[in-house]
Amino acid sequence: MIQVRILTVSDRCAAGTSTDTSGPYIAERLEEWRPGGVALTRECVSDDVIKIQGALNRVVELANADKSGQEHLFISSGGTGLSPRDVTVQAISPLLEKQATGIMSALVSLCVQKTPFAMLSNPLVGSIGRCLVVCLPGSKKAVAENLDILFQVLGHILDLISDSKSSISSFHA
Amino acid sequence: MIQVRILTVSDRCAAGTSTDTSGPYIAERLEEWRPGGVALTRECVSDDVIKIQGALNRVVELANADKSGQEHLFISSGGTGLSPRDVTVQAISPLLEKQATGIMSALVSLCVQKTPFAMLSNPLVGSIGRCLVVCLPGSKKAVAENLDILFQVLGHILDLISDSKSSISSFHA
Amino acid sequence: MIQVRILTVSDRCAAGTSTDTSGPYIAERLEEWRPGGVALTRECVSDDVIKIQGALNRVVELANADKSGQEHLFISSGGTGLSPRDVTVQAISPLLEKQATGIMSALVSLCVQKTPFAMLSNPLVGSIGRCLVVCLPGSKKAVAENLDILFQVLGHILDLISDSKSSISSFHA
Ligand code: NA
Repeated sequence: MIQVRILTVSDRCAAGTSTDTSGPYIAERLEEWRPGGVALTRECVSDDVIKIQGALNRVVELANADKSGQEHLFISSGGTGLSPRDVTVQAISPLLEKQATGIMSALVSLCVQKTPFAMLSNPLVGSIGRCLVVCLPGSKKAVAENLDILFQVLGHILDLISDSKSSISSFHA
Repeated sequence: MIQVRILTVSDRCAAGTSTDTSGPYIAERLEEWRPGGVALTRECVSDDVIKIQGALNRVVELANADKSGQEHLFISSGGTGLSPRDVTVQAISPLLEKQATGIMSALVSLCVQKTPFAMLSNPLVGSIGRCLVVCLPGSKKAVAENLDILFQVLGHILDLISDSKSSISSFHA
Repeated sequence: MIQVRILTVSDRCAAGTSTDTSGPYIAERLEEWRPGGVALTRECVSDDVIKIQGALNRVVELANADKSGQEHLFISSGGTGLSPRDVTVQAISPLLEKQATGIMSALVSLCVQKTPFAMLSNPLVGSIGRCLVVCLPGSKKAVAENLDILFQVLGHILDLISDSKSSISSFHA
């Protein structure tokens, strides 16, 4: 069972003045990807460094305490852009033990072939211990395109990070 | 009105032993992009960390002091390569508040489809407060290709950074 | 003559329980690339930060002491992935004076067009003084694809870093 925390980062969703569509959409896509294989929880915070870091830290503590060999995924949506309110990358980046630069480059170079506005997203992917951390843009369309790409390798990445050799036979790294 | 400072970074241009073609070319392209909408100034410094940082800091001070809501762009050309004299990335990178990793990846992955030598450029893009910072390679040909890509999203980026919602309806981040 | 140190990073190869195929393959490819023009040495260490850094530091010391104008290349294979044992990027990255972000982006964006698993590699390229540093994934297939791309610009990069203007006439940076 893959333990997944989905974090929506949005002032308006946190204040209740806007409906969170990206969070439920990520949940839906993950359940389609591994039917019955993911345990999902969702949370929404405002564009606030301390709140975003708190949400990640709680997931990392759970992952570190978990001796069952389960895989752990933290996936956020929102706050990766260049507006002054966007602070997700600034919040999460210093906490990562490894940056998955290959995935980050690939998400951009593949998405930008469809729309130049993919340049404005700054997806952040990395790991802390045995927890995979994925920070996606806020728009549902951007989330959809990033997930399409990510699902091609997500199973392998989770195996690698949790050090379970089960599905890994031959891969590119 | 978008306030633009164009910085040419080149030992030879600063010494007057070579003519700066990239600086005037960037000016020309920006004026074509927004006819009558850009206020341009140009400067040339040698490949020197202190001089490059000084040029950027003066622009950031002006941008921070400007309460008129105008957009501010610092755009340099030169010194992004791997030669020992190239120090632009080393000078600018530590001053950035945000790196626009998506734009940086996209500039390379799109340009490299035309010429493998685009790999040798290391474009740097980011923001400091409400100032957009773009560091391009020195060759006019490379500048041209990077600007072709950048102009697809430059209006949106400047809107985002200056937090003016005017032209932003639906974008990818 | 280009001085090349090839480092294989692998617990199993270092322990003798697995045969190093990527190291000899890199040697073969470099000799084909510049027949008679490369002086190659090879080494194998386990996935250990101190050992990896030691191997690089020895090469950098030799390069710094070398006043002959020769070019120096350190090229490693293995340990760039997301498994907890992979530490090559963590070991090498803090030692680099410059990161060749353009090459890193290009290696991923070009390789990922052939296989999504290229996302799992996190190639690291940069320089320390006059030494070019290239860290590739461990799989021979991934090494092959990365070298195909790298060889398009490797001669130019070595010229740039060693500041020998010989073969540089017009390039993209
Ligand atoms: Na990149």
